[in-house]
Amino acid sequence: MAKQTSEAFPMNGGNGPYSYAHNSTYQVILTAQREKASTELLIVLKEGVDSTKAKIQAAIAEKLDIKHLPSSLKTFTIADLGCSFGPNTFIAVQNIIEAVVLKYKSQGTFSSDVPEFQVLFNDHSSNDFNKLFESLSPEMPYYVVGVPGSFHGRLFPKASVHFVHSSYALHWISRVPPQVVDKSSPAWNQGRVHYASAPNEVLEAYSAQFSKDIQSFLDARAQEMVSGGLMTIIIPALPNETPVSQSTFGAVMDLLGSCFLDMAKMGLMSEDKVDSFNLPLYATSPKELEALIERNGCFSVEGMEALNRPMTHDAAYNAKLCLSHMRATLEGPIREHFGTEIIDELFHRFAEKSAMSSIFINSDGWAIDLLVILKRN
Amino acid sequence: MAKQTSEAFPMNGGNGPYSYAHNSTYQVILTAQREKASTELLIVLKEGVDSTKAKIQAAIAEKLDIKHLPSSLKTFTIADLGCSFGPNTFIAVQNIIEAVVLKYKSQGTFSSDVPEFQVLFNDHSSNDFNKLFESLSPEMPYYVVGVPGSFHGRLFPKASVHFVHSSYALHWISRVPPQVVDKSSPAWNQGRVHYASAPNEVLEAYSAQFSKDIQSFLDARAQEMVSGGLMTIIIPALPNETPVSQSTFGAVMDLLGSCFLDMAKMGLMSEDKVDSFNLPLYATSPKELEALIERNGCFSVEGMEALNRPMTHDAAYNAKLCLSHMRATLEGPIREHFGTEIIDELFHRFAEKSAMSSIFINSDGWAIDLLVILKRN
Repeated sequence: MAKQTSEAFPMNGGNGPYSYAHNSTYQVILTAQREKASTELLIVLKEGVDSTKAKIQAAIAEKLDIKHLPSSLKTFTIADLGCSFGPNTFIAVQNIIEAVVLKYKSQGTFSSDVPEFQVLFNDHSSNDFNKLFESLSPEMPYYVVGVPGSFHGRLFPKASVHFVHSSYALHWISRVPPQVVDKSSPAWNQGRVHYASAPNEVLEAYSAQFSKDIQSFLDARAQEMVSGGLMTIIIPALPNETPVSQSTFGAVMDLLGSCFLDMAKMGLMSEDKVDSFNLPLYATSPKELEALIERNGCFSVEGMEALNRPMTHDAAYNAKLCLSHMRATLEGPIREHFGTEIIDELFHRFAEKSAMSSIFINSDGWAIDLLVILKRN
Repeated sequence: MAKQTSEAFPMNGGNGPYSYAHNSTYQVILTAQREKASTELLIVLKEGVDSTKAKIQAAIAEKLDIKHLPSSLKTFTIADLGCSFGPNTFIAVQNIIEAVVLKYKSQGTFSSDVPEFQVLFNDHSSNDFNKLFESLSPEMPYYVVGVPGSFHGRLFPKASVHFVHSSYALHWISRVPPQVVDKSSPAWNQGRVHYASAPNEVLEAYSAQFSKDIQSFLDARAQEMVSGGLMTIIIPALPNETPVSQSTFGAVMDLLGSCFLDMAKMGLMSEDKVDSFNLPLYATSPKELEALIERNGCFSVEGMEALNRPMTHDAAYNAKLCLSHMRATLEGPIREHFGTEIIDELFHRFAEKSAMSSIFINSDGWAIDLLVILKRN
């Protein structure tokens, strides 16, 4: 049952400067503090983290229906889907537990009657679970469990989970749609590594795959979650009515795509290799996501709002932030297809182009981070 | 809560010839088949595996009290404690699940009403969980969970586990008793790496640590298991009334100890280094173990018997089997203390001494593998 999708790209491993562990939001704040970044940036970053935390706490306070759970409940089970191995997952889980405990107490439950907590940390079996487990502190006030497998399939027994959290994971589609690498298809994505600026057929193929993935994700969760259980999803998205071709997200993808093409022209990789590569990333919109949730029918949307993004008015810093994040998350699939040797050159070119680009001056056109709060009917 | 003991030695990793994965019992059979071992050996090995399997199946058929479990039970939870990462753990779990399903069906339960299975694979957080998870097949008919932490403490929520299995793990004590490396103590174990042939004080220190470990193990399981839940333990032991100094186990330990001393005399390691090293292994006896279980008071002993050991009349093969097993399991703690560079030399010496030794001719004095079946009151 620990079903694997055909494509599973772990975040960049290790402890190196480009690792995911060093480039997750929380680490970015620590690094910024260490590097004595501008006060403005520190405030923006800190505000982003605090505001997300507060919003999830509020959702639990308002929406978690404890009276709906059996009064004899001994274990409150939380799943973090797509947990990776960085410190973010522990911080998110800690926040959720604190809010659930607060909710229990606000309903008059004695401390001794609050259930124990078990946390199911899930990611692909290629995730570095050893690193995740090594980072555990013995003081963590919950039972830790690692669950390998794709969250597009069943991971847990029926009606066994009370709370699901998934942060920056659902925008990874489970596979590149086959038609975008099929030369005979109208959706063949020649000369690009993403659907941004591509013909409509390519966008449609990506969108159809995303839709299928969300359906299988929700179908599995509907079986695994107890009735009344809450789910918080954080997913990068585009504002409604913003075409990808006019978004900063699209512009960044095009910038990266142009680096591939430059390298192909210089003979550093073949054009065929570029044509056959597509990043398995999709930016949905609030409207599209809401429609998919409604179509599934097992969850009510209890909240959907944009979070503050850690962007500043410092274009150079925004570019740097974007670069480190892109490298930490995209290096895996790129290395898988092109090999290790092109990576440094590729991101060096991307950094140079970013520095000269006007994309990062205005943070308004940037993608949003959507916080979605769902309740299992 | 995922408490770690101070000393946690993972089995030998990787896929190399000395790795645990290649030297677990199941793999030894496969290797023996590949190497066209004698028919006698293959029969002995196969009989060992089959007989253990049959005995665990019989215990479940006879002792598992399904009527005691709630009829609405949706998930039957099995924990494998000290699972390591080799294929043995999957084989053991598969066997348990088949027997539980059979038991349900024998009581008239329809297939569709048999609960789903969730398996909690536990080992120290230094265990190679990545390797364990990579070996999973999508066809496994259960939900897989990895649980890092020492089984001498709590690992799971209260009353959440229906079946516990622990194979070749409980003979590892959680730490070397401090007095055996304390020069001022009468239990100082100078010039030896184990309590075999040591003064009584050393044996007593080991025995006291084992007793403490079993108590904390049983205390934790008593809280985690449901009433009526079964536990199967396989643990190497000495027959009752067999002093370690007269056992093959003791003789093998002494043989290994003499290799350390030889190397110290040749200046390949310091005598101090040898004095401060002790293998964290203890061989209990059926009587001692039974007394410890009784003292705990939460479990009834439903069965305790010696399993067939895969030993043959071929002394050379027995010695080889012992060497490969010793290296796969003991290399970790030895490397930790002495460094990597002495390992090959040490086991080369051990192999040479083993080949010349009469220890392996007669398998009668060998340690036994004890199968213990417990039920949670």
